[in-house]
Amino acid sequence: MRRPPPRRRYEPPLSTTRLPIPLSLKEKDITIVVDAMGGDFAPGVVVQGALEAVTESSGRVSVILVGRQKAIESELAKLAPGGAEAKIAGTLRVVDAGEVIEMNDAPNAALKTKKNSSIAVGLSLHREGKADAFVSAGNTGAVLSASTLMLGRIKGIGRPTIGALFPTARHTPCLLLDAGANVDCRARHLYEFALMGSAYVAAMFGTRHPSVGLLSIGEEDTKGNEVTLEAFKLLKEGPLHFVGNVEGRDILKGAVDVVVCDGFVGNILLKFGESIPSFLKAKFVRYASRGPREKLVALLARAGLRSVMQEMDYQEAGGVPLLGVNGVSIIGHGGSSARAIKNMIFLAEKTVLQNVNGKIQDSLHTSRQGRE
Amino acid sequence: MRRPPPRRRYEPPLSTTRLPIPLSLKEKDITIVVDAMGGDFAPGVVVQGALEAVTESSGRVSVILVGRQKAIESELAKLAPGGAEAKIAGTLRVVDAGEVIEMNDAPNAALKTKKNSSIAVGLSLHREGKADAFVSAGNTGAVLSASTLMLGRIKGIGRPTIGALFPTARHTPCLLLDAGANVDCRARHLYEFALMGSAYVAAMFGTRHPSVGLLSIGEEDTKGNEVTLEAFKLLKEGPLHFVGNVEGRDILKGAVDVVVCDGFVGNILLKFGESIPSFLKAKFVRYASRGPREKLVALLARAGLRSVMQEMDYQEAGGVPLLGVNGVSIIGHGGSSARAIKNMIFLAEKTVLQNVNGKIQDSLHTSRQGRE
Repeated sequence: MRRPPPRRRYEPPLSTTRLPIPLSLKEKDITIVVDAMGGDFAPGVVVQGALEAVTESSGRVSVILVGRQKAIESELAKLAPGGAEAKIAGTLRVVDAGEVIEMNDAPNAALKTKKNSSIAVGLSLHREGKADAFVSAGNTGAVLSASTLMLGRIKGIGRPTIGALFPTARHTPCLLLDAGANVDCRARHLYEFALMGSAYVAAMFGTRHPSVGLLSIGEEDTKGNEVTLEAFKLLKEGPLHFVGNVEGRDILKGAVDVVVCDGFVGNILLKFGESIPSFLKAKFVRYASRGPREKLVALLARAGLRSVMQEMDYQEAGGVPLLGVNGVSIIGHGGSSARAIKNMIFLAEKTVLQNVNGKIQDSLHTSRQGRE
Repeated sequence: MRRPPPRRRYEPPLSTTRLPIPLSLKEKDITIVVDAMGGDFAPGVVVQGALEAVTESSGRVSVILVGRQKAIESELAKLAPGGAEAKIAGTLRVVDAGEVIEMNDAPNAALKTKKNSSIAVGLSLHREGKADAFVSAGNTGAVLSASTLMLGRIKGIGRPTIGALFPTARHTPCLLLDAGANVDCRARHLYEFALMGSAYVAAMFGTRHPSVGLLSIGEEDTKGNEVTLEAFKLLKEGPLHFVGNVEGRDILKGAVDVVVCDGFVGNILLKFGESIPSFLKAKFVRYASRGPREKLVALLARAGLRSVMQEMDYQEAGGVPLLGVNGVSIIGHGGSSARAIKNMIFLAEKTVLQNVNGKIQDSLHTSRQGRE
């Protein structure tokens, strides 16, 4: 087992640093390394999002932007002239990484050939303890593979997982995992997802004893496919607040805090869910085209609809956590805006501060004790 | 192979018939046998829906209601006093079946112990050619099993399937199958679903060469789980208009006419989709509670939202077709209203008139020829 990266205390200035490191940098500050080349609109929106995050956090968070230095600094120059530059001095630094893993590169092949990619360099900084977390809106498969390889897995976890937050009719979201990291799963992987998801929700949202449901095609214990039927037994015997099988309708209803499924089902559901806002928009546009009365109603409805849709917007949530690795790695949507990048950075900060990994380890310990 | 039930030409009056069979009953009329005991609100709403169907069709469709005769006739008496009764004379008949398979009965066990159930009796009438189609909003598993057992499978079809229509941003819906009939599938089953779905869409919506997508977690040919990767090859070699892998977001987008997946994924998606309207409603209610301005916006938006939501409402579509059996069996939602029952009856009528099964057989023939 690889040791978890130590929490950052003191670090010598990075050789590639251009902006001065201020002496006032406190030990409790959190440093997030951000893949400046990740995402469809990189590096522009990433740099902007990082700048917004450090500005908004007033020095609480510092960011290391990793990627093609010239491109990043050209974006910084555009965004931070004069006073702004001074304001962020020391809280935003740049580390050069000459290669870029493109969105459509085959993850594992790219990681082998592009040793100096922004993803690899960024994760190295995190592993070496120079940063507390890594954030990327780049190639999901590459971030996932590289995080698992470079940070290592938490002892007792067979498969790290990506979670996705679904909005619900209640006040709290529903964490669904796996959302696409593990296509073909065994029962014990689903059990691990439940354990990690439960620890995450408890740590991040303060939910006590989060309820966990196993996604299936009927509430009865006997409903499911081969894998879920076996996972049902494991979950029933485990220490979690397992409520049994849940159905597709229970996610948006918010019937449980955590829903587990394999990454094939989870990824399809995630993308289906993400398509709801544009579907509704198309339908409203068509409705509005029926006549002047409908046009007026649609126009008036727009504000309400936009507000409701906001909750379904991945830009708001920022990214999804990769759970089960020895570190904090946040994976964002390829289409992330500056706002999404900013929110990902704050999500990373909270994940570090809430010690999610420590809580996953505690939960694994409890689970092992129960079996002994 | 069991022969498909002959199209109804002449039939002697059923012994249990109370209302007189009119002499004017034409050969081209369609008779639908309806499970009067099926659904959460049976027999009340079923009888009402059947009455509405025969009334609205002005004699084009006649219905045989199967179930507990007294209960059905008591509902008929409530609904059709005086003139209405005369109006429907002969187009609505009752056949007694003393037993009821409840919604929560185990399908196969119930079919064995309740030989005289409304589902079994109704399907017998269809098999014997006394009706052209069978419609039920009852226990889905029982209707599925009984239809497969009693009507038999179309030669060349390993697994009959249930399809579900999803609304899309385009004008035409997207047919997703399997929607829950077959939990664990092999590649060749997915291939069959594609074949049947394509024939259904062509016959029912007049779509020429319907496009078919394989539901997966990425558009690339190499993305998927073990089963879908194998199905991809079969579909690529087959005669259908196969466009490759599609993702969760492509369903509501209407990227393809037909989407195939196993019944585990399909059922979860179907139920997730069905939960969208009530989720949005809950969100709008919360939005409205923010203040008087929001309340007004929500109030005005209601008409538009209702109109948009209508397309997502299973009551509109009525039921889903069970494809691959030697007959026409339409399965409805347990919560079906009278309107849903009426729409199911019209769906059954259209399925018969469009000769969907004949088109599935043609498609199987083409597929076999391609492989020879």
